[in-house]
Amino acid sequence: MADERPEFALIEWIRRRTVTRPEVLIGIGDDASVLQAPAGRNWITTVDVLTEGVHFDLAAASPELVGRKAMNANVSDIAAMAGEPVAAFIGIVLPRSRGRLLAEAIYAGLFDAARQWNVTLAGGDTNSWDGPLVISVTLMGLTTGRGAVTRSGGKPGDWLFVTGALGGSLMSGRHLTFTPRVNEALALHRSVSLTSMLDISDGLASDLFHLLDESHVGARLDGDAVPIHDDVPPSLPADVRLGRALNDGEDFELLFTVSPDDGVRLLRESPCGTPLTKIGELTNDRNVSLRVHGEWRTLARGGWTHSLDVG
Amino acid sequence: MADERPEFALIEWIRRRTVTRPEVLIGIGDDASVLQAPAGRNWITTVDVLTEGVHFDLAAASPELVGRKAMNANVSDIAAMAGEPVAAFIGIVLPRSRGRLLAEAIYAGLFDAARQWNVTLAGGDTNSWDGPLVISVTLMGLTTGRGAVTRSGGKPGDWLFVTGALGGSLMSGRHLTFTPRVNEALALHRSVSLTSMLDISDGLASDLFHLLDESHVGARLDGDAVPIHDDVPPSLPADVRLGRALNDGEDFELLFTVSPDDGVRLLRESPCGTPLTKIGELTNDRNVSLRVHGEWRTLARGGWTHSLDVG
Repeated sequence: MADERPEFALIEWIRRRTVTRPEVLIGIGDDASVLQAPAGRNWITTVDVLTEGVHFDLAAASPELVGRKAMNANVSDIAAMAGEPVAAFIGIVLPRSRGRLLAEAIYAGLFDAARQWNVTLAGGDTNSWDGPLVISVTLMGLTTGRGAVTRSGGKPGDWLFVTGALGGSLMSGRHLTFTPRVNEALALHRSVSLTSMLDISDGLASDLFHLLDESHVGARLDGDAVPIHDDVPPSLPADVRLGRALNDGEDFELLFTVSPDDGVRLLRESPCGTPLTKIGELTNDRNVSLRVHGEWRTLARGGWTHSLDVG
Repeated sequence: MADERPEFALIEWIRRRTVTRPEVLIGIGDDASVLQAPAGRNWITTVDVLTEGVHFDLAAASPELVGRKAMNANVSDIAAMAGEPVAAFIGIVLPRSRGRLLAEAIYAGLFDAARQWNVTLAGGDTNSWDGPLVISVTLMGLTTGRGAVTRSGGKPGDWLFVTGALGGSLMSGRHLTFTPRVNEALALHRSVSLTSMLDISDGLASDLFHLLDESHVGARLDGDAVPIHDDVPPSLPADVRLGRALNDGEDFELLFTVSPDDGVRLLRESPCGTPLTKIGELTNDRNVSLRVHGEWRTLARGGWTHSLDVG
């Protein structure tokens, strides 16, 4: 017996398309889902709410890419804890005028990303209204046997690293198509002792403070070493390019710290395919200084505002 | 060092107010949260998205009551699996014009309900925009040692029970102030073998079909036995009153099934303070019939539409 209500047709449609995972004892379609962690591993949970007109613009990005980003932004949060993504719960509020077709396109993008990371769609809530599109993604992942990596374990003297390169993500559209650093985080977590880690979403100059605040340390950040992404136009002045790398955000790269010994190993062995760059060190005092062209300045909370043309 | 951005001030504000629980290894403020289940117990997860103008109207309900309902609707889903609520993740999108004060009032209501159920606020995501208020609540709970109760275990011959009384919830405002049946579900789960269960949100006549579909059975529903809530005006004709109890929804009572032997025990022992009523039986065929004034009729999917004045 098919239930004619669109909500239940959608649940069936999702059930048929999602991968299954042994951790999910009860999946989509009941009052709630039940997940079982393998022995010695715990659940990591993260929630992101993306809203039309704020986080994405359906005139500029296809609903498939919006769905993909909604999933991958959460996958990046699980990666930042050095976890493995497992099960997603999608809360979606659909504009009534666009309804089912928009929902299917969003889900196509969510499924693309979910399949890539072997994530199952284990539950959710679908509504419609006369407002803009809202997508709430709750993602559950598993810690490895080595536990989660938080923002709070950084110690004075630790080296500060970043994966990949920064800047230009929003302007280039990379913010829709980036690859969350799951494999890199897991490889790093296996090879060295990560003392703290987060993913860069607001921009290095902002997110660095979250790590420092939680770890109760300061930092010396070597601006001359910060890897600038090719998406930042090379024609721009050097200071503006650095500003873009520090402030643009939506990089979804990992910012992490290790002991100097582990840092030396990482530079020598490069245990993940993605480039790793040492960009500074943690300090005992709570100040944050930034080296630009060999000169040290104070990095203010809220970002480096040398170049006022960037947010 | 205080971060001036409202988002981070709100995280600190929440951190100071929430209860702590030993299961939460890492709570609000990191990229994600980490939860550890005690041995032999698993995590139950549910997500609800509530939108202004659809699920609530801030002209008719205080933001505190809206926050309370947002939490308790999810608590009711955990109860429906016979679980214990533990940790909530709040995704909130605030109308920019109303901002922080509205957020605090919503959170006051969320905290009221969370404290009542000893639920910790373990994470979330706060945004603002020029649209209406959106609240997404992800709630994680723990199964008891006896596991979760699903919608799918009902067997032909099982007796169909309901807690409390039904109807009139939206009109009376009870939908904002109801008590989720957590304690009742746990007491029932301890005393008998619950074969299937769900909570009534759309209305008995709709939700019954969810249980029947998942259990692959039919039912005989005794309309004359359905307990009608005092919130349904006694002055209404009997058929209209029954229609209200079947169709109004937002009751957040439990609908569950047990073997006849367990059913007899429940009627004799009444193991939870809330009244339990036997309202029917599951059948082998997939039909659903409803007895009204001693006469059996077919109950159509989508509710009993004798009284067209109710939704």
